[in-house]
Amino acid sequence: MGRDNPRMHAPLKNDTFLRACLRQPTEYTPVWLMRQAGRYLPEYRATRAKAGSFMGLATNTDYATEVTLQPLERYPLDAAILFSDILTVPDAMGLGLSFANGEGPRFAHAVRDEAAVAKLDVPDMDKLRYVFDAVTSIRRALDGRVPLIGFSGSPWTLACYMVEGAGSDDYRLVKSMLYSRPDLMHRMLAINADAVAAYLNAQIDAGAQAVMIFDSWGGVLADGAFQAFSLAYTERVLQKVKTHHEGVRIPRIVFTKGGGLWLEEMAAIRPDVLGLDWTMNLGAARQRVGDQVALQGNLDPNVLFARADQIEAEVVRTLDSFGAPGHGHIFNLGHGISQHTPPESVSVLVETVHTHSRRIRSVV
Amino acid sequence: MGRDNPRMHAPLKNDTFLRACLRQPTEYTPVWLMRQAGRYLPEYRATRAKAGSFMGLATNTDYATEVTLQPLERYPLDAAILFSDILTVPDAMGLGLSFANGEGPRFAHAVRDEAAVAKLDVPDMDKLRYVFDAVTSIRRALDGRVPLIGFSGSPWTLACYMVEGAGSDDYRLVKSMLYSRPDLMHRMLAINADAVAAYLNAQIDAGAQAVMIFDSWGGVLADGAFQAFSLAYTERVLQKVKTHHEGVRIPRIVFTKGGGLWLEEMAAIRPDVLGLDWTMNLGAARQRVGDQVALQGNLDPNVLFARADQIEAEVVRTLDSFGAPGHGHIFNLGHGISQHTPPESVSVLVETVHTHSRRIRSVV
Repeated sequence: MGRDNPRMHAPLKNDTFLRACLRQPTEYTPVWLMRQAGRYLPEYRATRAKAGSFMGLATNTDYATEVTLQPLERYPLDAAILFSDILTVPDAMGLGLSFANGEGPRFAHAVRDEAAVAKLDVPDMDKLRYVFDAVTSIRRALDGRVPLIGFSGSPWTLACYMVEGAGSDDYRLVKSMLYSRPDLMHRMLAINADAVAAYLNAQIDAGAQAVMIFDSWGGVLADGAFQAFSLAYTERVLQKVKTHHEGVRIPRIVFTKGGGLWLEEMAAIRPDVLGLDWTMNLGAARQRVGDQVALQGNLDPNVLFARADQIEAEVVRTLDSFGAPGHGHIFNLGHGISQHTPPESVSVLVETVHTHSRRIRSVV
Repeated sequence: MGRDNPRMHAPLKNDTFLRACLRQPTEYTPVWLMRQAGRYLPEYRATRAKAGSFMGLATNTDYATEVTLQPLERYPLDAAILFSDILTVPDAMGLGLSFANGEGPRFAHAVRDEAAVAKLDVPDMDKLRYVFDAVTSIRRALDGRVPLIGFSGSPWTLACYMVEGAGSDDYRLVKSMLYSRPDLMHRMLAINADAVAAYLNAQIDAGAQAVMIFDSWGGVLADGAFQAFSLAYTERVLQKVKTHHEGVRIPRIVFTKGGGLWLEEMAAIRPDVLGLDWTMNLGAARQRVGDQVALQGNLDPNVLFARADQIEAEVVRTLDSFGAPGHGHIFNLGHGISQHTPPESVSVLVETVHTHSRRIRSVV
C-alpha cells in the first residue's frame, strides 16, 4: 500500500496556493482555472479522442493523469485539479452517468419519487476507486510541482442532476420535490452529504492536498431554501471532511455560483476559502466576510475572448478590486473556462496575475 | 383618433397596484404574475392554436386583447400586462424575430460585427403599431377594472438576443463583443435605449398606465460590466420615458433577474419599483434601499407545483419577509410563471396574498 503516505510524495516546491487558502502571506497571488484541463487545449482533445468518451477518460488512471498535467506544461499555474466530474458520486450510487456528444451529463435512472429515494444509499467507495487511483497517480506525477486539488459536487447540486436526470433551465422537477416533498429532499441530501464527505476523505487519503465543493446550482434556490437545502448540507460535508491529513492542513473551498447574496452565511459554515463568480466585487466581498475566509475568483471566462491588452486590463482590475497587499486571494475564473478559449489568452492571464500581484505587494 | 385620450377610458375601479408602485398606503398587497397570460391556461392555448403562432397571436389586436384578459376572468389580479414579447423592438429593426415550436425566440439576422451594428437604427414606431393598437384595445376592454402595464426588454437584454441570435447559456458572443469591441457594444446599446424609450412612450400614449423594463439577462454580467453596459442604458431609458401622461403619474418598474447584489445602484437610477427574483430576501432588500423604491416580487414559480397548504405557507412567508404593514410591496413571482403550472395553484396564491396582506395591515 503506502498510497496514502505523504512520505511517498515529493515535498512541495510551490505551496503558494495552499498558503493563500490559509490566508498566510504569499509573494504573489496564486492562480489556477476551473476546468483548466479541458477542451480548449488541443492536447486534451487528442487524449480525449484516444479515450473515446468523457467517462473513458475520467476512469482511466493514465489518461486522467495525462490531461491533469497538460495545462501545467503550458502555463505556470499554482495548483492542479483532479480531472474528473462533479457527478461521479451519484454514478456510483447506480444512476448511470453518461455524456452525450456535445451535450451535458445525463443519468439513466432519475430519482423522482419516494421509491427511488428509498433505494439511495452512500455508495461503496470501492466503486470510486478509479478516482482515488487517479489522485494518487497525479500526485506522484506532479512530483511536488504544485498542490493537487480534489473535488465533488455539493449535495444540492448532485440532487439537481439526480432528480432532473440532466441539466435544466428551470429546475422544475427538483424544486417541485423540494416544495412538495421536503422530507424526501432532506433524505436525499443527507445521503448525498455523507457520500460526498466519504468521497472527499478518500481523495484526501489518496493524496489530494485541498478539496473543493462545487455548489454549481445553489444559486438557483430561493432565499430560505438555499440555507435549508444547500448550505446546511454543505456544512454537513465540511463537518465530516478531515481538516488535516498526517498532520498537514487540508484547505476546503466552497463555491456557490450565484451565491453572492449569501456570503456571510457561507463564511459562517467555516470553509477556508469561498469561491466567487464574476457578479461579486471582490473588495465588497472582503468587506462583508472580513478575514474569516480567503477568496477565490472571479474573472468572467468570456474576458479571454478579448485582445491581450484587454485581458491584462481586466485581470489587473480584478486583482485591484481585491485590494493590496493581496494575501488571501486565489485568482481564478468565476466559472469553468470555455472550450472555445484561445490557449494563448490563458498565458496572458497567468502572466498578468503573477506580475501585477507582485507589483501590488511591492508598493504596500 | 382619440385613442390616446384618457377621457376615452373608464375611470379605474382598482388602483391598488398603481398606489403600491408609488409607495402609497393600500388596503392589501396587490398581485399580478409575470407571464400571467400564458400557456398554463387552457383558454390561452386555445386562442394560440387559432392564431397559429406566437407572433400571429401578438400581432393580432383581437387575439392579444383576448389573452391579456383571460387570467383576469379567472383570478382577482390587480393588474393586467400587455400580451407581447420583450423582443419586438429588434424585430422592428429588421432582425426577423421568430419562435420555433417549443423553443425560445430566434433572430434571422444576428448582429455580430461592425457592419451589422452600423446598420442599426431606432426603428420607425409605425412598425410597432400592432403593439400600440393592442394596448389601446386592451385598455378599452379592461374598462377600468385594473391598470394596464406596458413593457419592453432592456437595452442590454435586447443586445444579448441581437448578438447571440437566440438564447444562450454562456453569452459568449455578446460578451466577446462587449470585452473586445466595447465601442460597438456601446453604440448598439445607445440605439437600443433610444428605441426602447420611444417604444415605451408610444405605449403610454396608447394607454399603458405603468411600464416595466425587463433586464432578464443583466444578472449574467460581471460587476462593473453590469453598471456600464446594462444599468447605464436602463437609466438612459428612464431619463427619456415620460413620468406623466395627461397629468397622471406613470410608474416605471425595473426588473433585473439576478441583480440582487446591485440593488442600491439600481435604486439610484430612480425607477418607482424594483422587481426582485427569489434569491433576494425582501426584508433585506427593504433595509438596503429604504423608501426610495417600491419592491415587486418574489416567489419562486416552482412553489406553484406544491400542495395548496404549502403554497399558502410560502406566500405568507414572502409577505412576512417584506414586513408590516406591507405598503410599497407588489406581490409577484420572481420570474415568469411556468407553462406546467396547475391553474388552481394560482387561485391559492392570489387568494392568500389578498387575505394575508389584509391581516398584516390589521395587526399593525
